[in-house]
Amino acid sequence: MRTSQYLLSTLKETPASAEVISHQLMLRAGLVRSLASGLYTWLPTGLRVLKKVENIVREEMQRAGANEILMPMVQPADLWQESGRLDDYGPELLRLKDRHQRDFVLGPTHEEVVTKLVANELSSYKQLPVTVFQIQTKFRDEIRPRFGVMRGREFLMKDAYSFHLEDECLEKTYQIMFDAYCRIFERLELDFRPVIADAGSIGGEKSHEFHVLADSGEDDIAFSDASDYAANIEKAEALAPKGERAEPTQDIETVELKLERLIKTLELDVKTTVKTWLVVGATAEGEPIKIVALVLRGDHQLNEVKVENLAGIAAPLTFATDEQVSAIANCHSSSLGPKGLTIEVIVDRSAAHLSDFVCGANENGRSFTGVNWQRDCGEINIQDIRNVVAGDPSPCGQGTIEIKRGIEVGHIFQLGRKYAEAMKCSVLNENGKNQTLTMGCYGIGVSRIVAAAIEQNHDKYGIKWPKAIAPFQVAIVPMNMAKSARVKETAEALYESMLQAGIEVLFDDRKERPGVMFADHELIGTPLLVIIGERNLDAQQVELKNRITGEKSLIAIDDVLALFN
Amino acid sequence: MRTSQYLLSTLKETPASAEVISHQLMLRAGLVRSLASGLYTWLPTGLRVLKKVENIVREEMQRAGANEILMPMVQPADLWQESGRLDDYGPELLRLKDRHQRDFVLGPTHEEVVTKLVANELSSYKQLPVTVFQIQTKFRDEIRPRFGVMRGREFLMKDAYSFHLEDECLEKTYQIMFDAYCRIFERLELDFRPVIADAGSIGGEKSHEFHVLADSGEDDIAFSDASDYAANIEKAEALAPKGERAEPTQDIETVELKLERLIKTLELDVKTTVKTWLVVGATAEGEPIKIVALVLRGDHQLNEVKVENLAGIAAPLTFATDEQVSAIANCHSSSLGPKGLTIEVIVDRSAAHLSDFVCGANENGRSFTGVNWQRDCGEINIQDIRNVVAGDPSPCGQGTIEIKRGIEVGHIFQLGRKYAEAMKCSVLNENGKNQTLTMGCYGIGVSRIVAAAIEQNHDKYGIKWPKAIAPFQVAIVPMNMAKSARVKETAEALYESMLQAGIEVLFDDRKERPGVMFADHELIGTPLLVIIGERNLDAQQVELKNRITGEKSLIAIDDVLALFN
Repeated sequence: MRTSQYLLSTLKETPASAEVISHQLMLRAGLVRSLASGLYTWLPTGLRVLKKVENIVREEMQRAGANEILMPMVQPADLWQESGRLDDYGPELLRLKDRHQRDFVLGPTHEEVVTKLVANELSSYKQLPVTVFQIQTKFRDEIRPRFGVMRGREFLMKDAYSFHLEDECLEKTYQIMFDAYCRIFERLELDFRPVIADAGSIGGEKSHEFHVLADSGEDDIAFSDASDYAANIEKAEALAPKGERAEPTQDIETVELKLERLIKTLELDVKTTVKTWLVVGATAEGEPIKIVALVLRGDHQLNEVKVENLAGIAAPLTFATDEQVSAIANCHSSSLGPKGLTIEVIVDRSAAHLSDFVCGANENGRSFTGVNWQRDCGEINIQDIRNVVAGDPSPCGQGTIEIKRGIEVGHIFQLGRKYAEAMKCSVLNENGKNQTLTMGCYGIGVSRIVAAAIEQNHDKYGIKWPKAIAPFQVAIVPMNMAKSARVKETAEALYESMLQAGIEVLFDDRKERPGVMFADHELIGTPLLVIIGERNLDAQQVELKNRITGEKSLIAIDDVLALFN
Repeated sequence: MRTSQYLLSTLKETPASAEVISHQLMLRAGLVRSLASGLYTWLPTGLRVLKKVENIVREEMQRAGANEILMPMVQPADLWQESGRLDDYGPELLRLKDRHQRDFVLGPTHEEVVTKLVANELSSYKQLPVTVFQIQTKFRDEIRPRFGVMRGREFLMKDAYSFHLEDECLEKTYQIMFDAYCRIFERLELDFRPVIADAGSIGGEKSHEFHVLADSGEDDIAFSDASDYAANIEKAEALAPKGERAEPTQDIETVELKLERLIKTLELDVKTTVKTWLVVGATAEGEPIKIVALVLRGDHQLNEVKVENLAGIAAPLTFATDEQVSAIANCHSSSLGPKGLTIEVIVDRSAAHLSDFVCGANENGRSFTGVNWQRDCGEINIQDIRNVVAGDPSPCGQGTIEIKRGIEVGHIFQLGRKYAEAMKCSVLNENGKNQTLTMGCYGIGVSRIVAAAIEQNHDKYGIKWPKAIAPFQVAIVPMNMAKSARVKETAEALYESMLQAGIEVLFDDRKERPGVMFADHELIGTPLLVIIGERNLDAQQVELKNRITGEKSLIAIDDVLALFN
């Protein structure tokens, strides 16, 4: 490709709107352009990268035995009614009406469509297991699209679905896909981790996310420093402190300060205090609202996902209003505490291990010191409802927890029979009886991978692409071609022979100053530059510059092609 | 691919809903499945074909120097407001609102998005010309989706756009794309014709459609039997009859029969009669509706596109209501005639050449005979408003017209400055002044090509794929593999060596009767079957069956691989 015929579209300035480095570099290097919030056009350089990622994903899916299909983006809403997700999915699901006023949605995922397809196509256990995948445009109406293609509204996704008669078979395919995902991210040369994950609204039992580690990641990942254990902080279990809870040594005293003020005034260790929230509990339709208390040690953070997964709690988690708090505890939420509450009290394992602790007194502007669970607070429900923190013992039993940030680029689930049951997806089993199938689903954010790769591979000059997904293998950069016939001839000849050899080459035939050309190629991140200048041509040589290492060297013109064998 | 792990999904019965052969075969051969009206899932076999078509299109676009990009499917409605098409496009343009109640459309085409992109990215004439293309999912909310993927609502399209400073440059790129289109359809081995076309609502001056010839086509194509001339019947010019109009020889007489009855009763040659319609004329906003008369020779068909392109006519063409007809002519529309009308009368060239003709008398149940234009009808406006018919002289001046049916699979346009002007797409020219760009646009219906290829390539057993787009190159069909270890070993070994050699092979490892297997492979249309049976193995041979010719032959096992070199 000649730059003169190419939509290079590099920018000198960093667009002010871009918060993270990948977004900045994707705009500056001419990979994407914003059309509207969360909607991006992929320019030629960006699309070359996207297609390479797509092809690696496709090859590994095929190697894993999956059948590629392509489902529509526009889906009938009644399928989502059938699965029960039309109401559950929330406003990220974009709804629309066609010209006949029939209801459709823009597909954010395809469990409904694929389950219906398999229900119609398969009739016998002999046709199982089967795995299908597609690489297709998805739409999620994010409330706050951000970070460029990292959290866009329209994006390219690989979604795969497997169907099985028995759970053991699902387990087996799940492992095959797990391994395929590892191969994909290895081929992409990304520093990644599979982590134990919460299945969220997709549903199902077992689930792993694949994270690319990067400071700009939106997720916290908990690792053991002594084993392979890694989990999304949403899911990482916080173990109960070892040993028995200490016996009470203090009597309760009332202090005329609210909890926050008390801690500051007495310079208390927050680890000896607890904080309390009231949240809405799960109730059946028609029942009055039930309020539940949550108690955490003062230094810990509430893990909303863990709370939502508790049986007695309404999901999504809803905090009690000021009026509800006042009606239950007769105080502001800042003075809440576990003593004297007549509602269910769910206490985190670490908070439950405290003795002689400090808490709000359920009276405005008052706190208690010397509180003890059994003696003062009646019956409590002890649960794991906090985020793990660095230094916690790893739940795997080996080592302690470290926390890093990650970008979720893949997510695999054992869905079980949730969709198959709702959508009547069954086949005849060996005994000639109808048996509902069990399912797995396996997603990869193809466009997000491009951004994640940049987060891990850049310097102050621009992108440093992993070889497997660089938009070009090499750029030919001639110096002052307009003035030197010899440089022009050499560059043209080398370009032609590279094209012949099937090498992906960008030939910079613009009439630009060398500095401008170098800056563009460093920004775009082509792994290798071949620099052709008058000076070296006397010795029939050209200069090589490696974008990753920065190394420069001279090489005979005739040896250049052999670099790509 | 092993059929045991493949979503083969062939059907024995022809689905009743499918009207045309390609739709029937696409369902039966397991290429697609309907999700909802005009929405199709591509199953593995269909997607293999679709991807092959896509790749041929991509290669030829790249060879023509076009840059591949990818624009969003969801587009802000304000861009369509800016171009003026938000109102013009009609209900095929699906409108939707996002969660913030902002207006969007599902892209049926991308002139707006790409013009805006180029307006933002390019600043100098030095960056021109530039051609971009994408292969992307489109949505058109067809009122009556039909013929399967031939006229679906969501479909895969290649759309390219070129931008130029001057019209001469556009002409040049237009020719390059014309040639690229010819190469694409040649590589697809389709019997196709480029035909002169009407630009329709896209706008612009010059336009060609590319049609695959097939009886099921929705378009009539007019060809010269003595030259390269071919045009969509919408656009093919009907020349005026040669020679002067004959002088009147009859007097007008009134007959107490309405026109249709008169023709039957007297067994008149309809070529000596004219028929008359009243339609709505073009008026400025606020002006009262103007009605215009159209007159055609009795045997000719009105060409609505030609009428819509006339200056004085409202587009889309709207016929006068019974009330409007009655108010103007005081009769039913079945008794209309040109004599005595006080409105503008537009007469087709052939009708205008008649003398002593028969027509309605503008009185219910009455006709005139012996009517003559100049003597009886006052001033008329003579225009070409009819469809050409077989036997007409070709407008190119050579030969006569033949009519065939075609499926439109491509359409290229010289758009000119319509969009660039509306969306302020300009660059600085050599004189440092802003100059609005001129544009071309170039579409190919990628998914429609799959159906069109089947319309041209099938027999009673199924599809006969052109080699370039067959889903598999070869199928291995072992006879009674369960009973013969030798057959199984040979089949497995051949399959493995084909995979190693990169051959696209479908290995039928199902436990099915030979008849079932053969029927499936003939239906799917794999070009070559390798049949492995006990009998031939004694001589180390297998049988070959050519799907296209039906020929069978024996070949040494060791020679099979060499067939694919």
